This record gives sequence, C-alpha cells and structure tokens, in this order.
Amino acid sequence: MKRIDLNCDMGESFGVYELGDDAGMLEIVTSANIACGFHAGDPSVMAATLAKAKARGVACGAHPGFLDLWGFGRRQILGQSPAEIEAQLIYQIGALQALAHAQGLRLEHVKAHGALGNMANDDIELARTVARAVRAVDRELILVVMPGLPSERAGEEAGLRLAREIYADRAYAASGNLAPRKLPGAVLHDAQEAAARVLSILDTGEVTALDGTSIPVRADTVCVHGDTPDAVAMARAVRATLKGAGYAVLPMEEFL
Amino acid sequence: MKRIDLNCDMGESFGVYELGDDAGMLEIVTSANIACGFHAGDPSVMAATLAKAKARGVACGAHPGFLDLWGFGRRQILGQSPAEIEAQLIYQIGALQALAHAQGLRLEHVKAHGALGNMANDDIELARTVARAVRAVDRELILVVMPGLPSERAGEEAGLRLAREIYADRAYAASGNLAPRKLPGAVLHDAQEAAARVLSILDTGEVTALDGTSIPVRADTVCVHGDTPDAVAMARAVRATLKGAGYAVLPMEEFL
Amino acid sequence: MKRIDLNCDMGESFGVYELGDDAGMLEIVTSANIACGFHAGDPSVMAATLAKAKARGVACGAHPGFLDLWGFGRRQILGQSPAEIEAQLIYQIGALQALAHAQGLRLEHVKAHGALGNMANDDIELARTVARAVRAVDRELILVVMPGLPSERAGEEAGLRLAREIYADRAYAASGNLAPRKLPGAVLHDAQEAAARVLSILDTGEVTALDGTSIPVRADTVCVHGDTPDAVAMARAVRATLKGAGYAVLPMEEFL
Amino acid sequence: MKRIDLNCDMGESFGVYELGDDAGMLEIVTSANIACGFHAGDPSVMAATLAKAKARGVACGAHPGFLDLWGFGRRQILGQSPAEIEAQLIYQIGALQALAHAQGLRLEHVKAHGALGNMANDDIELARTVARAVRAVDRELILVVMPGLPSERAGEEAGLRLAREIYADRAYAASGNLAPRKLPGAVLHDAQEAAARVLSILDTGEVTALDGTSIPVRADTVCVHGDTPDAVAMARAVRATLKGAGYAVLPMEEFL
Repeated sequence: MKRIDLNCDMGESFGVYELGDDAGMLEIVTSANIACGFHAGDPSVMAATLAKAKARGVACGAHPGFLDLWGFGRRQILGQSPAEIEAQLIYQIGALQALAHAQGLRLEHVKAHGALGNMANDDIELARTVARAVRAVDRELILVVMPGLPSERAGEEAGLRLAREIYADRAYAASGNLAPRKLPGAVLHDAQEAAARVLSILDTGEVTALDGTSIPVRADTVCVHGDTPDAVAMARAVRATLKGAGYAVLPMEEFL
Repeated sequence: MKRIDLNCDMGESFGVYELGDDAGMLEIVTSANIACGFHAGDPSVMAATLAKAKARGVACGAHPGFLDLWGFGRRQILGQSPAEIEAQLIYQIGALQALAHAQGLRLEHVKAHGALGNMANDDIELARTVARAVRAVDRELILVVMPGLPSERAGEEAGLRLAREIYADRAYAASGNLAPRKLPGAVLHDAQEAAARVLSILDTGEVTALDGTSIPVRADTVCVHGDTPDAVAMARAVRATLKGAGYAVLPMEEFL
Repeated sequence: MKRIDLNCDMGESFGVYELGDDAGMLEIVTSANIACGFHAGDPSVMAATLAKAKARGVACGAHPGFLDLWGFGRRQILGQSPAEIEAQLIYQIGALQALAHAQGLRLEHVKAHGALGNMANDDIELARTVARAVRAVDRELILVVMPGLPSERAGEEAGLRLAREIYADRAYAASGNLAPRKLPGAVLHDAQEAAARVLSILDTGEVTALDGTSIPVRADTVCVHGDTPDAVAMARAVRATLKGAGYAVLPMEEFL
Repeated sequence: MKRIDLNCDMGESFGVYELGDDAGMLEIVTSANIACGFHAGDPSVMAATLAKAKARGVACGAHPGFLDLWGFGRRQILGQSPAEIEAQLIYQIGALQALAHAQGLRLEHVKAHGALGNMANDDIELARTVARAVRAVDRELILVVMPGLPSERAGEEAGLRLAREIYADRAYAASGNLAPRKLPGAVLHDAQEAAARVLSILDTGEVTALDGTSIPVRADTVCVHGDTPDAVAMARAVRATLKGAGYAVLPMEEFL
C-alpha cells in the first residue's frame, strides 16, 4: 500500500500571541513540526502543543530556527560559525525533547525552519551542520529534507533516516528548491489544484518547475500549512485527495 | 572518610560578554552549575563550558533561572503559573542535557538560580514545581537544596537525590535561608574566615545566623563563587582548608 | 458642553503576530495608547500605528511597560531600582516620540501599561518615578492616572497635566483601584451595562465598588479595549451612549 | 588651525555585563558613540554613559545597530525592508535622544554600528535608509560616514552635515571600505604605527590600501577603540601624536 505523511508547522504562538489553527490541523496531519522558542513558540506553548498532538495521535518533531522572534526566523542571519549554529540547534531540539519526555513522548523528526531551512537547502556546509546537530541529539531522529538538494545529501552522509518532503502550496525552481515567494505563481492558493498537484507528484515522481523544467522528486511527506483558513482548507483537500487515491496517511515514523 | 563537593556557577558569559573566571574555578571545584541561556549563557557558551568542565573532570549540572538576561535572573518575576515555570525549567535543563549528551556527558545535578532559587527556598509550591521539573527530565538528577527549607522538603517529597548546600561567602538568617545581601555582614569577604567557617559548619553540623541563632545544617556541597579575583581566592582557600582537614573533595555524584 | 476622551491600547502586534482590532478601534476612540516595544509592539508596528491614528485624527500617546514580551507586561518584575525604571520609561517614550516626530506628530499623553501601571497605582514611589520619567521627556505630556490613587498624587506633585481615567469594562475595589480580574464580577461583559455604568459614573462622579462602597471619581477619559469582537462592540456602545447623552467625545489634549 | 575629532564606541555594557574602558576613553576622545540597546547597551547603561560623557565634556551621539545582542550587531541580518530598518533606527536614536534630553544634553551625531554600518558602506539604498532615519529624528544631527563610499553619498543627498571618518586601527581595501578583519594586516596592533598612519592620512589626504592602492581620504574624525588595554593605549597615542602635530582635538560639532 502507498504510504504518505502529512506534516505541518505548529506551536508558533508566543505568550498572548496566537498563530495558526493548531487544533484544526491536528485533525488533518500526521506529523507536527513544533517551534522551539527561537523564532516562535515558548516553553508553555511547546508543552501545550505536545499535549494536543499526543491527544490526537500526531507524531511530534522539532522545528528549530534562528533566534529571531521579530522576523519569525525568516531573516537570513549571516556570520554565525558552524559551531554556533550546531549548538543552537542542539539547544532547541534538546529543549523540546525534554518537554516531550516529560509527557511520555518521543520526538520523531527534525525539520529546519525558515531562513535556516532555506539556506541549508542551498549550502552543503550548513546542511551538514544541521545533520550533525540532529545526530548529536538522537541518532534515531528522522531528518526532513528536500529531495535532490544539499540537505538531503548531508542527511545521507550523516547516516540519518530521511523524510523527503514536498510542499503542497509552493511552486519549485529548476534547482529543485522552492521558488521565491515573490515570483508570480510561487504560492498556490487553490485547494483542489494543490491537492491534484501533490497527487501527481507522488504518482509520477516528478514535479514541473515554474520554468517548465521537470524535476525528479521522491516524497515521504507533504508539507501543509495552517496559518490561514484557506490553508486549512487546502490541507484538508490534500488529505482527502490522497486518501481517495488509496494512500495510507501515516506518521513518517511508521514507514521510514 | 569525610567527603564534600564544591560547586560553582559557570557559563554565565553571553555573546561577546565575558563573566567569571571559569577556567580558574574549574581547577578548584568538583561540580559546575551551568547557566542555561535564560538569565545568562548562550548555546555556544554552554557547549564550551561543558567541554572545559569535561576536560577537567568536573561534573556538570544545570543552573536554570528566569528569562531575564537584563537582570541576570536576580529579579523576582511574579504572576507565572506553576505550569509556566515547570515548562521553562524543563526547557532549560533539556537544552543543556542535549548539549551535554552531544559531548558524551551526562548531567549530574540541577540548582535553581537567583530569584528563582531564593523564591523556591521560601515557597513550598514553587519548590515543588522545581522538583517536578527536575524529575520530569531525569529522575537520576541530583537536586541541590538548602537544608531545612522548602526546597529540601519538596525534593524529598519528589523522591529525588538531594545535595544539601551551604554557602562559603554568605551569612544566614535565622530562618536558615541566606541573609539578604544588603544587611551588614551578609557577605563574607575574608577568604580564611570563610574557609574556617565552612569547616566549622561541616564539623559541627551547625551554622550561627546573623542574629546569633544556631541552625542545624547538613551539607553535601559548598557553593563558592568565581566572579571576582577575591572570590577565586576564597574558593581556593575553602578547598585547601577542607583538604587539610581530611575531607575528600569529590563530585557529589560519587557519594550521594 | 460635557467633554470626554476615549482611550484604547493599540499597536500591540509584534512581527508576524497580530493582536487587537486597531483599525476598528480607531473609528471609535479619540486617544491611542501605543505600545513601545518592551511588552508589545515593535518599531515597525509603532510607526504603522502612528500613521493609522494620524489618518483617523486620533491623538497618540505612549504606553510603556516592563521588558516582558513573553508575559505581555502583566508580570510584576521586582528588584528594579527607580533609576532603572525611569531610564526604561524615558527610553520607550523617547523611541515613540521620535517615530511620531518623523511623521509630523506630537505625542499627547503617556499611560503606564499592565503590571507597571497597576504597581504605580499602589506605590507612591513608583508612581513618582513614572511621573519623573514623563516630565523628563516632555513637560507638556499628559499623564493618564487613576483618580484617588498614588499615580494621581505623583502626577500632581510633578506638575503634569493629568487625565483621570475610568475603565468601561472593569469593576473597582474599595481602594479605588481596579478589582483583580480573578474576582467574580471584576470584568464586565455586557456592552449596554458597561456603557450605562460609564455614563452613570460621569454624571454622578461616583462609582460603586464590588463591595458596595461608593467611591468619588472624576474622569477625563474612559479606557475601552479592542482585543476581542465583544470588546469592540462594548467600546462602540460606550461611545454611542456618551454621544447620546450629550457628551462631546474629543482627544484629551483639546480640553485638558 | 587644523582640527580633528576623536570618536569611540561606548555604553556597550548590558545588565551585569561590562565591556570596554569607558572611563578611560572619556579622557581621550571628544565624541562618544553610545549603543542604543539593540546590539549592546540598556536604558540604564545609556543614561549612565550620557552622564559620564557630560561630566567630561565629551559630545554624545547615537550608535544604533541591528537587534542582535547575541551577535553584538556584527551579524548581517538580511530580509529587512527599508521601512523596517528606518523604523528601528528612529526608535533607537529617539530613545537615546530622550535620555540625553532628560540630562539637558543634545545628541550631536549618529554612527551606524557593526554589520549595519558595514552594509551601508556598500549599499546605497541601505545608506539612504540610514540617512533618512537620522534626518527624520533631527536634521541637525551629524552623520558619521566613510569618505568615498555610499554612506557619504547618501548623507550628502539627504542634506545632512557629515563627519568623514577614518579608523586608527584598521587597514583599508582598495574600495575605500575597511579590509575584512580576517585578512592579514587588517587590524593594526602597534600604537605608534597607528598614530603615525593617522597623522599621515590627515596630512596627505590619502591612505594606502592593503593592496597598495592609494585612496583619497578626507577626515573630520578618527575612530579609536577602548575594548582592550592595548586599544586604550593606541587611542592615547593617536591623541598625543595629533596634539603634537598641532591639531586641535575637538568635538566635531564645534567645527562642522
């Protein structure tokens, strides 16, 4: 049987600030990428998000980012040494790991957030730093990577289990990386179109980039978003389409 | 043989800011209380401090505090729920635990910092929250407490191994808690006097409070400081005095 | 003609985090209390809030608080010296003042936020520190105070223009301070009831505390909130009721 | 008579963390660039630094940087819009301006710190944003720029008074910008050599870049540092050399 995971960023609230429909998304996805307090989230939000995911049977992973609450981790912060980046990733993953352990949970995966993730998709040294940090915390953790990019190669070199990821709502550049949000067509808004495209990628093993290039893509997990009502509707459409096409939607842990 | 541990706060630097003679103190003490990034320290400092302690054979513990870099964790921050405090402690201890694990180290103990520690010495509910957080991360962790105070009682209730602590450079109130720094005589400055007092406390099981009250005190570890040259000299005198009196100076882990 | 100001906290968003219906409230109120980046707000949000208030002809004031984004400035942070508090208030007010100046605006008033404001209502020394900071920035600034409390007295001593304030949605303790939110009846939820009570206070110069005590109250401005749809509806009801009763609803600057 | 200003970064301490020999440097320099709480400094440090500069008759200016205490403002943070950068600069300058005003002082100048300053030396759009922010706060403020670089051009376009600056302890690239610290020879350590070079630049109007290129340079102020004992000694040597060569060492305000 064909198996796929659905992952979503969660736990991005902070103090009085609420962000994202986590409750709604926990009914749809199978893996939660939980912010670790550097670009979003705080210890209380992290604990509450773990508890909610546990109650829904959704697997939990760490979603570490740069120390940049103001910029939500989307700003490239240059001039950090590999050791500095490795330490801040271990710090964040370890913090969430302990909060998970306190609830009898085990982290399943790690996915780098925002600018950190984007930069690691382009930069093999940074990608190796991320992989090293993940392995240092727990060699059993699954690293979420983009197929064909440095993040995947670094994960393979590190001997980690990898979850290749595709995005439901984002178009691709010919490089295999996401097309910058600013380009026309870079963000998909139509739920049915996105769902159909996801199914097509999974069935054909290919995605068509914005410039028409065909890129081979292998996917274990589909990234969906929950930060707008439209996003939740799209996630629901993706899940329904995949189930309708005979996919078992399961936490990546169960089939990787 | 009589055994005692010497502990010191460390890893309190942040970014370009350096604080404390960690290298000097690592030659003197047997347990390092490492700041966890909330009131002092950062992930890089934490990793470097763990590495230096490891190289000297000094046991490592977590020294979590309130999120208050500006006030160095010395400001009482009211209005936080037990769940919020528990989550922020688990977060900090877990972060350090993962950084230690990455270097093949295991955390030995936890000691609450500054206002958090002081408040937990007076408030049994807060002390229970601290103990609960420690146990949630790792039941084998030793909790450093002040004998006769709520922090000790909460640690006993939680079934944790406890290290009773005395301070080399601080006078006591009749309650058994530290006398406020502002009171005359509350902070000892003479190294030999402090060393002699520590030895007396250990040998007699009693300390005389500022008001003359005699307080029964059991001690497994002596807190020394390294934030001034005088403080380092005092720590050295305490160690020499204890060794001269036949005490084995060892990490608390080895005899608790 | 009877005149009254309506004030509302605004500009409490931060980065990607949005809070409060500022656009909706700017159609209702005459004075905006703008967060200054310590407990909420950021420089971009501050600039945008000033611009929106300017476009609506709403007067702008500073709403400084403790450095506590996580706790939204609602946590009492003890152990700060008067000089530290004065400096952080001047810092915040000055920052907003410059952003206002850049848009050709002049700040009209200052109102202390959250725990800072509550503590200054009880503690004459802290209240004097707040007044001193306001006067140090600009002697023409109006200080918003609660009538009958230390904040009013400190403002009078400092020779500042004062705006006495009442709250539309909060019940009072016999002391004249707000009743703690946790008490039953401390927060009013019915818009018409709140509006009627505001009108009664203004017309009679008295408010009935939770325990039945009658407290003399003089009011220049009414604080309304915009953080929930219900709050916006209540603010609208208060405005309509006051207008219907013949009050001119004007920025405090125009009649103080 | 030949006139020159000496400027130094100051007020870079934070909470318990102390950095730089401000007291020593205030005996040497004529203009203090005071950190504004984003990359270093805090409101209390800012107020204290203003008071110390005032007591020594040293002119005060703002030294704003990126919001990056951990990286001391030396990390390039990308992806900020011009409006975001302008707002955060106005915020910082305004905060210091108000603290200065509270002490009866007037800010004399603004100098961008670290990565922000370096980036503005290369990027005309960013340089224009900096100049726009300075002018928005106070058109009388002097902008410190590097001669021949975009920062100077943007300052000229904005109609600001400019102070052209040279560095006592840094070598130059052929572009006229500072040579990266990592290059051999990029940082001068010998006090007499540095002092002689400064004098040569001032007398000849030229500096020789690391690659031998001769660059025309006009200088109104010399940047010296105070973060190490060697740095203070170098600053003292520069001042003595300039005085010995007949230069009047004065705040830039007095001759620009």
